[in-house]
Amino acid sequence: MTQPLHQVVTTPSISTSTMEDMSTLTAALDDTSNPILARLASLNLPHNTYTHPLSATVDELLTNAPLSTDSNECHTKNLFFKDKKHGLFLVTVASSTDVNTKELASLLKLDGKVNLRLADEELLLQKLGVKKGCLGPLAIMNNVDKDVTLVLDESLLAKVKVHSHPLRNDASVVLAPEDLMTFVREYCEPVVVKFSEKMGGKVPSSRPEGEKGATKPRIEKGEGGAGKGANVNKKQTKKGETQLALKWSKSENFAMWYSDVIVLSEMISYYDISGCYILRPWSYKIWELIQDWFNIQIRKLGVENSYFPMFVSKDRLEKEKDHVEGFAPEVAWVTKSGDGDLAAPIAVRPTSETIMYPAFADWIRSHRDLPLKLNQWSNVVRWEFKDPTPFLRTREFLWQEGHTAHASYEDADVMVRQALDLYRRVYEELLAIPVIPGYKTEKEKFAGGHQTTTVEAYIPVSGRAIQGATSHNLGQNFGKMFDINYQDEKGETQIAWQTSWGLTTRTIGVMVMVHGDDTGLILPPRVAPLQCVIVPIVSKTFPLENVAPYCEEILKSLEEKNIRCKLDDRSIYNPGWKYAHWEQKGVPIRIEVGPRDLENRQARLVVRFGGEKIDVGIGTLASSIVTKLEEIQSNMFAKAKEFRDSHLVQVTEWKDFVPNLELHNLVLTPWCGGEHTDWEEWVKEKSREESLQNRGKRAKMRERQLRWRPRLCAFPLISRRWMRG
Amino acid sequence: MTQPLHQVVTTPSISTSTMEDMSTLTAALDDTSNPILARLASLNLPHNTYTHPLSATVDELLTNAPLSTDSNECHTKNLFFKDKKHGLFLVTVASSTDVNTKELASLLKLDGKVNLRLADEELLLQKLGVKKGCLGPLAIMNNVDKDVTLVLDESLLAKVKVHSHPLRNDASVVLAPEDLMTFVREYCEPVVVKFSEKMGGKVPSSRPEGEKGATKPRIEKGEGGAGKGANVNKKQTKKGETQLALKWSKSENFAMWYSDVIVLSEMISYYDISGCYILRPWSYKIWELIQDWFNIQIRKLGVENSYFPMFVSKDRLEKEKDHVEGFAPEVAWVTKSGDGDLAAPIAVRPTSETIMYPAFADWIRSHRDLPLKLNQWSNVVRWEFKDPTPFLRTREFLWQEGHTAHASYEDADVMVRQALDLYRRVYEELLAIPVIPGYKTEKEKFAGGHQTTTVEAYIPVSGRAIQGATSHNLGQNFGKMFDINYQDEKGETQIAWQTSWGLTTRTIGVMVMVHGDDTGLILPPRVAPLQCVIVPIVSKTFPLENVAPYCEEILKSLEEKNIRCKLDDRSIYNPGWKYAHWEQKGVPIRIEVGPRDLENRQARLVVRFGGEKIDVGIGTLASSIVTKLEEIQSNMFAKAKEFRDSHLVQVTEWKDFVPNLELHNLVLTPWCGGEHTDWEEWVKEKSREESLQNRGKRAKMRERQLRWRPRLCAFPLISRRWMRG
Repeated sequence: MTQPLHQVVTTPSISTSTMEDMSTLTAALDDTSNPILARLASLNLPHNTYTHPLSATVDELLTNAPLSTDSNECHTKNLFFKDKKHGLFLVTVASSTDVNTKELASLLKLDGKVNLRLADEELLLQKLGVKKGCLGPLAIMNNVDKDVTLVLDESLLAKVKVHSHPLRNDASVVLAPEDLMTFVREYCEPVVVKFSEKMGGKVPSSRPEGEKGATKPRIEKGEGGAGKGANVNKKQTKKGETQLALKWSKSENFAMWYSDVIVLSEMISYYDISGCYILRPWSYKIWELIQDWFNIQIRKLGVENSYFPMFVSKDRLEKEKDHVEGFAPEVAWVTKSGDGDLAAPIAVRPTSETIMYPAFADWIRSHRDLPLKLNQWSNVVRWEFKDPTPFLRTREFLWQEGHTAHASYEDADVMVRQALDLYRRVYEELLAIPVIPGYKTEKEKFAGGHQTTTVEAYIPVSGRAIQGATSHNLGQNFGKMFDINYQDEKGETQIAWQTSWGLTTRTIGVMVMVHGDDTGLILPPRVAPLQCVIVPIVSKTFPLENVAPYCEEILKSLEEKNIRCKLDDRSIYNPGWKYAHWEQKGVPIRIEVGPRDLENRQARLVVRFGGEKIDVGIGTLASSIVTKLEEIQSNMFAKAKEFRDSHLVQVTEWKDFVPNLELHNLVLTPWCGGEHTDWEEWVKEKSREESLQNRGKRAKMRERQLRWRPRLCAFPLISRRWMRG
Repeated sequence: MTQPLHQVVTTPSISTSTMEDMSTLTAALDDTSNPILARLASLNLPHNTYTHPLSATVDELLTNAPLSTDSNECHTKNLFFKDKKHGLFLVTVASSTDVNTKELASLLKLDGKVNLRLADEELLLQKLGVKKGCLGPLAIMNNVDKDVTLVLDESLLAKVKVHSHPLRNDASVVLAPEDLMTFVREYCEPVVVKFSEKMGGKVPSSRPEGEKGATKPRIEKGEGGAGKGANVNKKQTKKGETQLALKWSKSENFAMWYSDVIVLSEMISYYDISGCYILRPWSYKIWELIQDWFNIQIRKLGVENSYFPMFVSKDRLEKEKDHVEGFAPEVAWVTKSGDGDLAAPIAVRPTSETIMYPAFADWIRSHRDLPLKLNQWSNVVRWEFKDPTPFLRTREFLWQEGHTAHASYEDADVMVRQALDLYRRVYEELLAIPVIPGYKTEKEKFAGGHQTTTVEAYIPVSGRAIQGATSHNLGQNFGKMFDINYQDEKGETQIAWQTSWGLTTRTIGVMVMVHGDDTGLILPPRVAPLQCVIVPIVSKTFPLENVAPYCEEILKSLEEKNIRCKLDDRSIYNPGWKYAHWEQKGVPIRIEVGPRDLENRQARLVVRFGGEKIDVGIGTLASSIVTKLEEIQSNMFAKAKEFRDSHLVQVTEWKDFVPNLELHNLVLTPWCGGEHTDWEEWVKEKSREESLQNRGKRAKMRERQLRWRPRLCAFPLISRRWMRG
């Protein structure tokens, strides 16, 4: 059933001014069987509906349900294309925008033979379950085959409201664009492109055709991004440079900027299953560097690596009731193998407590078998349905999970804090991000555990706290459920005390958000896949062979100091392109080597973080770089900390709470803990309400929320009691 | 429907001699709806059935369907127990064996309060779907809840045939014990124990109670294996030592020996989902060492690590027809998340060609984007139904998969061979196992690929070849399917040439099989988690504090040379127990430090492989050990190679083919390759037939096949053409 946000009153008089008026004056659509309305309701997405005379074309619609031009609202035009080679496309643009297939092919970077044609009604019905004239972007819900690419015009995202058909053309649904995005993302990752407005498909000259690739990841390229032809002349190189630029700025549209950065820096590629992403070498190497460091640290604590199966039987998973309640809605179930049904469904691990602890029960008999400390690096699956975001919120993700058993609560608690401190160090020492260690509230703690500790980071621009990593004291709860008993020194049977703790690839996303700028990534040296890149400044008068031996010499001297370094001696790109390329990828130091450098036996260092340029003689180059890298690392941390600290506000009265959140501050308040747990709910509700009331006024805020939302919409850090000592 | 191996004739005269006679004289059971018979048929397990008067008890059965005592066949006695704490047990023993609950509890090592009682008929019906008096081991098929542990008496495995009820007690199914095992393993991993025969439950004194744990992994212990009490006196330590011993010898029962070794050395623990196993730190560390080495090597070849999603949509997976045909029967499908159905089923990767190659198509545009060389370390799932065996054949396994794209066939072919050579080196240089590189036949090549190369190892005792790792030249087949096009230097569109190559945790299993002995593992030094263990020979007159500083000094000197070393200074175990413990775990060198060693400032080295004992002065200890470890490594390889070479036979006439296989030889024959592919089938069929004819005569052979079978039963190496150069 529809749940309009505003009261709707039926009256015969129809205003033709803005839709805001209209929606209060015409009849809401009452169609309980409409799947789109049902889904909007179940997703709690604020929306409005209204009915109008049958309108099969845009022109009819504009006559039957006109919108004020002042309103910054629009109807949509929807076209369903097929292309033999490239597949099916549902294209949604504002009613005023023209779509021509040539521009579309160019925007989508379809290559080879392109033959986009409007699909016939049969295919429309088969693939999107609607009749001709009833199409809208929300129909993507019906594409069970997942073979239709939804293409949205970027201009829609700048509207206050978008009106579209809910599978029938005698009514429209009114949605804020971010809610439209949330809806369609339930079913696919839409491709957002920028159609030229009323220009007959001609791309405006200020935006060369080749640049469009930056809008969306699908068509992004490897290193050969400068163009397709083999002849890279001056002009084409310029084009290459333009291509490298991010399309969105961090402060203007944080979410789109984030997507831009991770794709263009070659960290992430999108994938055809929502919530799953490809970790390309540039991001995976960062994960490997985190792994290497973490493995050394846990080994010192006596933790050993191991590997447990990723499948878990229903019985086991459901053994601990609180635990399964916490994870059940997100569990992916394998029910078939080949053509046959499995005897019983098997879960893919969302976490491995129930997988590991029966084995713990087998292995642990005596106090002498304790502590038992295991870790595994693995992939886990949590089939979340909201806002998948690369690194931050993905259906499959990589992590380490430590699981230990101890003879006392105190021993377990020490382990919990040791693990948490390693997480703090991963953020602070490797990723140069300050974090606040603390406890989760009862409501936010790990399902089935006794107490959860966390490190929370601060995301600038969005001004939100984000959970960095958690370490759980499980008490004896799982021990009881899984019979993890041991005999103590006196021969008495005791239940083991346990911990579990996990750090995920989310770390990488937080790092991108905290440090990146409008040029791209800025990588902290300790986790940069490359710490330096050597770019010879070659030209017709100074060809590569003149400088190659010198560059090799530099490379060798750096490698001897274990600096991760690369010589970019590719002849197909000019130095300017290389500067932009490696800046976008966030390499901490660029080493430029030109004729004067060769002559003076020096090199110029250009620091990505801050832009400092210094000339250093070759004799001290390697040691200078070692020092400089450490300096960059600590400067990055200092800057991030300063910024975070300037947004950490103590609040003692409610009236200051939401306003401070809206100023993108972390809010430190008195907190009574678990004694009056209904306060937690009260604060959540109340702050959300206040925020929503302010919402209409802040269109900018909306854009920011488009792609990324923290778990607690307006309740970031209030829920932690600060950890002492 | 049943498919009896032998012709069955109905006649009124009943012989009472051996069952072999009986089965040809009484009526076969004709019950097309019987799920057990259907499953036996679908598994192609040779079996016989016959009908007899209703027999609800063993006594009735022995009267109604007597078996000759000479026949080495038996009826079964089946009991269904419940225990409040420990769960449900279906216990199957030979009809002549008595079961008492005290012995059962002891064999199963049930601890704490044990209260085993026969379950009532209601529970029997609910859990196993049979009425009273109709129970047999095959009823485990009906245990959809997977909560019944099947306990089999070891004596059954020594029979030629086992007779049991197919859910009804007016008929019996006759199965060879290995086929019985294959059947029940479809549903659970049975626990095999040894009941005392007709001794009223009293355990024979030659086999102390504590030893039974060695039979099966379930109840194996961590390092505290010496007993539960805190007071470890002389007697208990002795018991500990006994516990350490393997129960099976490698030559007598290879499969059981293998299971014993990997469990008691703490490499593997069994898991409640068939075909999934726990890799404990002792085996996982070996995998990490292989990973470390392999990562260095592939980096030299320009291969970068990355991570792709583990889920793949049906459409994608099925894009390449040959490929999906090869993998479809083994694919695990996720169809639900939480309580809801997914819009379309999603496969768990059996391999990642179809996951990676659409991204390759996006990334590759120009010849300058080639070669593209990626690798990932991941888990994959192949839901195989036959003979799961730890490491060798598991439903989930760990591997690396390399995937590359090139501008020419030649470049791809070089990559294929480079990868194969790395696999050869993993086996030969790290695992000390000789392998034969070669090609697979058309029938055995990678589904969808152009040509598959392989390294094949030789397993002693079983005398079989086993596939070590494969490297595939995919040609342009996937390139065509996934549109991996690029523009060459002339601007013409070309299709990329590809390779993929994988090495799995099977490596560890092969290593165990090749090198292990009746004492346990023997680890090649380069992959040993610990290369040395220091055991101080302490006693009342020579306490730890006397020798601890000296041991620490040795430890430090070894660690400085990067020798993986541990000082075992635990006071709860005596030196003898420690010797046995670390020998079983295969540590290459034990360093004994006693009073005389301290006095002479020396230590005694005891080499696991060969048993050599040498005294070395502390001044040269570390360097001696470095040399010794290398020596052990090459000696292990030399021995394995000599043994393999002595079992490599050239055969030019058919009459010598099967006899040589039965002598556990690898057979090198002329081979016409793909020109007459029906020869491949002919050889398989013919050799299998000949083998089966000999089968009845070789009961020992059967035992050996019990747990582990190579993919091609009697067709190991004939199918490879030798690689040139």
